[in-house]
Amino acid sequence: MITEMFFIMNVIGLIAFAVVGSFKALKENLDLFGITVLGVITALGGGITRDLLVNRIPYALKSFTDISFALAGVWFAIVLYRIFKKDISNRFFILIPDAIGLSAFTTTGALIAYDADVTFFGIVILATLTGIGGGVISDILLGKVPTVLKDDFYASCAIIGASAFYISVQSGIEVNLSAFICAAVVFMIRILAILYNWRLPKFS
Amino acid sequence: MITEMFFIMNVIGLIAFAVVGSFKALKENLDLFGITVLGVITALGGGITRDLLVNRIPYALKSFTDISFALAGVWFAIVLYRIFKKDISNRFFILIPDAIGLSAFTTTGALIAYDADVTFFGIVILATLTGIGGGVISDILLGKVPTVLKDDFYASCAIIGASAFYISVQSGIEVNLSAFICAAVVFMIRILAILYNWRLPKFS
Amino acid sequence: MITEMFFIMNVIGLIAFAVVGSFKALKENLDLFGITVLGVITALGGGITRDLLVNRIPYALKSFTDISFALAGVWFAIVLYRIFKKDISNRFFILIPDAIGLSAFTTTGALIAYDADVTFFGIVILATLTGIGGGVISDILLGKVPTVLKDDFYASCAIIGASAFYISVQSGIEVNLSAFICAAVVFMIRILAILYNWRLPKFS
Repeated sequence: MITEMFFIMNVIGLIAFAVVGSFKALKENLDLFGITVLGVITALGGGITRDLLVNRIPYALKSFTDISFALAGVWFAIVLYRIFKKDISNRFFILIPDAIGLSAFTTTGALIAYDADVTFFGIVILATLTGIGGGVISDILLGKVPTVLKDDFYASCAIIGASAFYISVQSGIEVNLSAFICAAVVFMIRILAILYNWRLPKFS
Repeated sequence: MITEMFFIMNVIGLIAFAVVGSFKALKENLDLFGITVLGVITALGGGITRDLLVNRIPYALKSFTDISFALAGVWFAIVLYRIFKKDISNRFFILIPDAIGLSAFTTTGALIAYDADVTFFGIVILATLTGIGGGVISDILLGKVPTVLKDDFYASCAIIGASAFYISVQSGIEVNLSAFICAAVVFMIRILAILYNWRLPKFS
Repeated sequence: MITEMFFIMNVIGLIAFAVVGSFKALKENLDLFGITVLGVITALGGGITRDLLVNRIPYALKSFTDISFALAGVWFAIVLYRIFKKDISNRFFILIPDAIGLSAFTTTGALIAYDADVTFFGIVILATLTGIGGGVISDILLGKVPTVLKDDFYASCAIIGASAFYISVQSGIEVNLSAFICAAVVFMIRILAILYNWRLPKFS
């Protein structure tokens, strides 16, 4: 049951992330290749970076389904863009699936980091990177300072969720249940952050 | 014979890519180290990224010749720049060797991806990345949106060539011949794209 | 004795690099997460990139101490910023520890490259990347052309030091002593470069 739930959350996340990435490209007037690259890399880039760091051939290159869902998201974004004629990635029907994706990706990252025998910091970094890495890479490709570094309460959700996973596993709670806790924490905090417009402090 | 041909194509590509990369740096007024980095990374960056993704220590770090040809290209670019006093990377005597390089690099990438046991998408991604990765990295280093994402019909040549390679291998055609087909397709389509000024569609 | 000296140099470097990276983020008005990422990646990014290239799981993910020192540097930078209210990373009490860090990181990179069985170019690239990689990544994250590519005599110190290491090892000098020579050369040249305001040639 939990496996099926994670599979569905991952699919929702891949499509939502690809939609968000393609919209960035559409706004910047990239061509069809640029839109596809931005969409696919937003969906898969976090997982690919994590796999590089733990020395695995990226799962995204070995799986037919992941990239198919990402390409579906690219296609969907182009359709949406022709209908709405503007960026709609800050609407609720994008923000909610995006939060589901952040939650699923962070949890996958935490699980893989747990297997890779890294420190607490290593788990938090790999989990967060899996969740936010695709968005960061796509911002870099557009020559922009990644949004997660400047505004919003986005990476913080992944950090808190990964920390909850670590504490949970260390307390002797079974790994699958800890993963579930991680996903729930990330999702709920992200929704609260959207609703209450949370921000991290700045110092200038 | 085919081995010798590929070797020569690779050498031409390394020098041409290094010239193009160094010119980007010269235009942006980078210093000698910056010019060298941009030239070398344009020539070797695609192959290095591909090697990272398939979990190999980059060949470029183990080979004396590849980086030597790249450095020769950097030196050549500085000489050309002092003679012409402007960017000449859109002249035919640069565009043709550059197309040869795109063709050789894409084919090497397809062959290595084939050995790495990835999906069709994996082959296309790794082959295309080998061909265009160096240029993308050098654009990112200059804080620019990579040209291949915005304009031109460049990455598309690699994608079509890698697809031809895959279809060819799947049809039972021998791998070396499939590699030759890949290289020929990439080169011919790239030349057509230059001659007829092909562009991919945009949506805004 | 040499081991202790290198440990201390590394700690100084981690803190100094983290301070410099955090200051970049503070100047760009990033939030607390952005400041932390910039500081940590400036301190650890060079080593992580090097580990990726030689196919190791990054040491920074397996060590508790390295990231702790980097986080201490981030905290220290925020405190300094509140006191001085401006960027102080070009003051001597930052430049000297930064030079110590460049020296320690370059030497670690040269030693690891030496074990990875790469060419002379491979050693120079991996050593230099270990020294300057973190700063380059943090500049890219801020959408800027990396400073080391444009100005200053910084990467050149690492290149000269790594070359000295290679010549020294090839001449039959023991590896530990060669590492010491590398570190001394990098540090002394960097200090001279600061004092005499050295620059590399440009061509435009």
